[in-house]
Amino acid sequence: MKKQPVFLIVGGDLRQLYTAKALCDDGVVYVLGFDAHVAVPEGVRRWDTTAEQADYLILPMPCTTDGVLVHAPFASQGISLSGLPQLLSRDALVLGGRVCAATRAVFADCGVSVTDYYAREELSVLNAVPTAEGALQLILEELPTTVFGLRCLITGFGRIAKVLSKILVAMGADVTITARKPEDLVWAELCGCKAVPIAQLEHLLGETDLICNTVPALLFAQEQLRLLPPDALVIDLASKPGGVDFDAAQQLGIKTIWALSLPGKVAPISAGESIAATIRNILRERGRE
Amino acid sequence: MKKQPVFLIVGGDLRQLYTAKALCDDGVVYVLGFDAHVAVPEGVRRWDTTAEQADYLILPMPCTTDGVLVHAPFASQGISLSGLPQLLSRDALVLGGRVCAATRAVFADCGVSVTDYYAREELSVLNAVPTAEGALQLILEELPTTVFGLRCLITGFGRIAKVLSKILVAMGADVTITARKPEDLVWAELCGCKAVPIAQLEHLLGETDLICNTVPALLFAQEQLRLLPPDALVIDLASKPGGVDFDAAQQLGIKTIWALSLPGKVAPISAGESIAATIRNILRERGRE
Amino acid sequence: MKKQPVFLIVGGDLRQLYTAKALCDDGVVYVLGFDAHVAVPEGVRRWDTTAEQADYLILPMPCTTDGVLVHAPFASQGISLSGLPQLLSRDALVLGGRVCAATRAVFADCGVSVTDYYAREELSVLNAVPTAEGALQLILEELPTTVFGLRCLITGFGRIAKVLSKILVAMGADVTITARKPEDLVWAELCGCKAVPIAQLEHLLGETDLICNTVPALLFAQEQLRLLPPDALVIDLASKPGGVDFDAAQQLGIKTIWALSLPGKVAPISAGESIAATIRNILRERGRE
Amino acid sequence: MKKQPVFLIVGGDLRQLYTAKALCDDGVVYVLGFDAHVAVPEGVRRWDTTAEQADYLILPMPCTTDGVLVHAPFASQGISLSGLPQLLSRDALVLGGRVCAATRAVFADCGVSVTDYYAREELSVLNAVPTAEGALQLILEELPTTVFGLRCLITGFGRIAKVLSKILVAMGADVTITARKPEDLVWAELCGCKAVPIAQLEHLLGETDLICNTVPALLFAQEQLRLLPPDALVIDLASKPGGVDFDAAQQLGIKTIWALSLPGKVAPISAGESIAATIRNILRERGRE
Repeated sequence: MKKQPVFLIVGGDLRQLYTAKALCDDGVVYVLGFDAHVAVPEGVRRWDTTAEQADYLILPMPCTTDGVLVHAPFASQGISLSGLPQLLSRDALVLGGRVCAATRAVFADCGVSVTDYYAREELSVLNAVPTAEGALQLILEELPTTVFGLRCLITGFGRIAKVLSKILVAMGADVTITARKPEDLVWAELCGCKAVPIAQLEHLLGETDLICNTVPALLFAQEQLRLLPPDALVIDLASKPGGVDFDAAQQLGIKTIWALSLPGKVAPISAGESIAATIRNILRERGRE
Repeated sequence: MKKQPVFLIVGGDLRQLYTAKALCDDGVVYVLGFDAHVAVPEGVRRWDTTAEQADYLILPMPCTTDGVLVHAPFASQGISLSGLPQLLSRDALVLGGRVCAATRAVFADCGVSVTDYYAREELSVLNAVPTAEGALQLILEELPTTVFGLRCLITGFGRIAKVLSKILVAMGADVTITARKPEDLVWAELCGCKAVPIAQLEHLLGETDLICNTVPALLFAQEQLRLLPPDALVIDLASKPGGVDFDAAQQLGIKTIWALSLPGKVAPISAGESIAATIRNILRERGRE
Repeated sequence: MKKQPVFLIVGGDLRQLYTAKALCDDGVVYVLGFDAHVAVPEGVRRWDTTAEQADYLILPMPCTTDGVLVHAPFASQGISLSGLPQLLSRDALVLGGRVCAATRAVFADCGVSVTDYYAREELSVLNAVPTAEGALQLILEELPTTVFGLRCLITGFGRIAKVLSKILVAMGADVTITARKPEDLVWAELCGCKAVPIAQLEHLLGETDLICNTVPALLFAQEQLRLLPPDALVIDLASKPGGVDFDAAQQLGIKTIWALSLPGKVAPISAGESIAATIRNILRERGRE
Repeated sequence: MKKQPVFLIVGGDLRQLYTAKALCDDGVVYVLGFDAHVAVPEGVRRWDTTAEQADYLILPMPCTTDGVLVHAPFASQGISLSGLPQLLSRDALVLGGRVCAATRAVFADCGVSVTDYYAREELSVLNAVPTAEGALQLILEELPTTVFGLRCLITGFGRIAKVLSKILVAMGADVTITARKPEDLVWAELCGCKAVPIAQLEHLLGETDLICNTVPALLFAQEQLRLLPPDALVIDLASKPGGVDFDAAQQLGIKTIWALSLPGKVAPISAGESIAATIRNILRERGRE
């Protein structure tokens, strides 16, 4: 009988516990970095010094915020990155989310490369689902009208916009996509949306109840925001710089929400299962299955 | 030039203010039963003794809870039903929601019959939308998983079930309808759901993450509830008796929400506009347009 | 071991052979009224005088056209209705489609009542699917444009209109429903269509590429047809009187197709399986399962 | 007043006439290469020697089959490529479909480059619609069952597969996508399909009523075809090499259709309008609008 592979999941938030749970179908799973008061799913073992050596080490997203300790918000004691290599079996694989140079350096010293599961396209697609659903939850909570009949403007037509627009169209909203590429506009129309080149954005704003921005560029400065109806809602789903001048919005009294990191917040179980599915794909491609 | 019709809207909650607002396109609109601190939408007038006689009197849903005073939760002073007939013009129409015998009696004395807009099928259909969206909001708020992939069981296939299942199917949930009538089961399959005769309900329960009950009969007693997974969510959308034994659910630790009167809570603007649309249909059918 | 029930299927077109095939899961199945050159599905037996007595006799739709012989277009020799009762076991059930008085009379003489499976609502719903798909096939064959973007007008919002509009909306057509009842118009909007009261039908005609009529009343007389663009296509799905003045359409050069009995023509297998499913429901309700 | 631009459309099939018609909104449009008996849409002019010089020359797809004459199946007399440059105004743009070296050479001599509208992504997306609808028409025509409930396998998840699966899912088919990339499989699931890695293709074949192949690689050799049910239908939508061993299919009695160039066949009007829309995008990007 073939020995079961050993997974060691270190640090991260609740998502990682659900990743751990999902991986129980694939082998023995230990977690490290969750204090005793944090319940661990059935089947998942807490790591201690008697544990087997790990064939797969799973680091969180991000792996570390200071380059020294693993990012482990549920651990009261720091877990040093540099202590991890000794827990690995020979030929172990290390996987992490948004792997930084410091993390790579630690493992490179022992000849181990780190695979970034967060760079995998399928995980980005999977994460679009809880992001879109989280945005929908905000819309339902904030607006005193139904989504049915709502005039929505979504900027961009990437993964999140595709999933979100599909839901809103199915709910009977009147969805307009604005984007730059002609093929995105065609796809938007095939998906039941109106499609308007981004150059014409401003003509749309007066007739919009809801804006969902997915473009990380300042599309909504004061100049654009003042064209919105006063009771419009703006949800910014774009990462880092965001797409909205929040100060200007506040001055104009336009309700604006910058919704970041929705998957872990609204659906940690699904988000964890998606990480597990992605890890499984990586292992299969490496012939590790 | 034809004289504009005069609407008088008495009592009710915020929905009635939005009904008032929507009716401003159709005539002059007064409201009565909203204290000074409650903002009234632009275009809507507060009734006072100088107001014109009303061609249309709109009572809330319900019209009254004690048979004497209009149901007016936003008024600190009582408004007597019996004082209303004198505010009407000749040939005025009176409309109300769930009109009771006491209300009918007050107007019958002056030879005026009361039309029940709440008995109109199109209003029931329109109200299914905010009800389904309100249920969706609860699902999104309560569950740590995505709706995508969620195993949902909806009992009954009336208006609310039809609208709710359409949304859940579009979001990628795995939706099963259980109902009594063979034709309902066929329709459910045509709508992308699985369909199971209600006699087989119990076989489904072990594999269900979410139950939405729309049948006003005790389908979920202790016997059924104990078959559910412990982290299942039960939302009861059925009126009056409901369909769930809440005490049994609590003992079993099954999270259960009895969600009543969702339209006015989650989407008062849309709910008010739906009442206005229904009133417009009634007037058109009476040749009053 | 319980004796298997015996089905005898007499007359009808190919659908009845597929009904026969589907019923092989439920018992022993004989067919009568298909000449030797007509292939019979695997598992189905041809009736002869050595056959067992039938527990269930299934007549076609219609049962008879002359009141004397079973409607059996694939049989070169006539099969007399009056000879059938002697083939039945005690307590046999007789089922037929659109059962006429003559058929009832034949069996009433032996104390057997005839159940009309064609009167069952679930069969009507099931038949809406091949009808809508058959209409779609005509649309795809006839029009030199895509359904995507097509301006379609469907009259009525019964079963066929519901299924057909669902498909057309999903394909990106611009679908308008016109109907009489306010609740039908609301449902049409919830299903992603535009909805227009039938009184305003004529305003729509100039902007319509395709009409699918499901209302058995003369909605499209010369007066209406002449408002259509010259290259519009009219498909009449309404039974008996139909809804289109075909002579007027021909004079105006408007292409018009009266599409009747589509289920048996476009999808005899599915149509036969639907009859079998309906028969199974009837037996279950009678406790015969 | 600004002078209207002059378009000259040379050669091609009916699509080019509809391209011409659609471009009438943008300027003066001449066509060349359609004999007198071929009707030309209203507003479109036949080119003769008195015509103005062309600002935009539109060649068909392909531009030429022999490198000398324009591909002009509706012209009885040959139109030489080399004669076209003299019909152009200064700064004219030349556009063609699948522009070959010979065509480029002719115009390069006069310092004119040729833009390939067929290489534009948005045209490929637009053409996926009539391709998918054409495939659907074949399915409806060929199969004696409804699409509702049909077990369909689509190989690949590019443009055509995305549009076709969307329609089939909406019609209630049971659609499985098989593809290589993990992210394509995730997208397929988000679109309501089952998704199976292409390595597991053979396990699916026994339970499949319809195969639509979009992958230009021999996925269906004798070995695979013999796993199909005998009444399965195979539609090959892949270009050039195709994906099916047609001889093997014939020997096995598996009905197989190689469906090429569907847009021009099933929806020439829409196909022509798509070319016009693409040309408009090109002109806008060049600041020519």
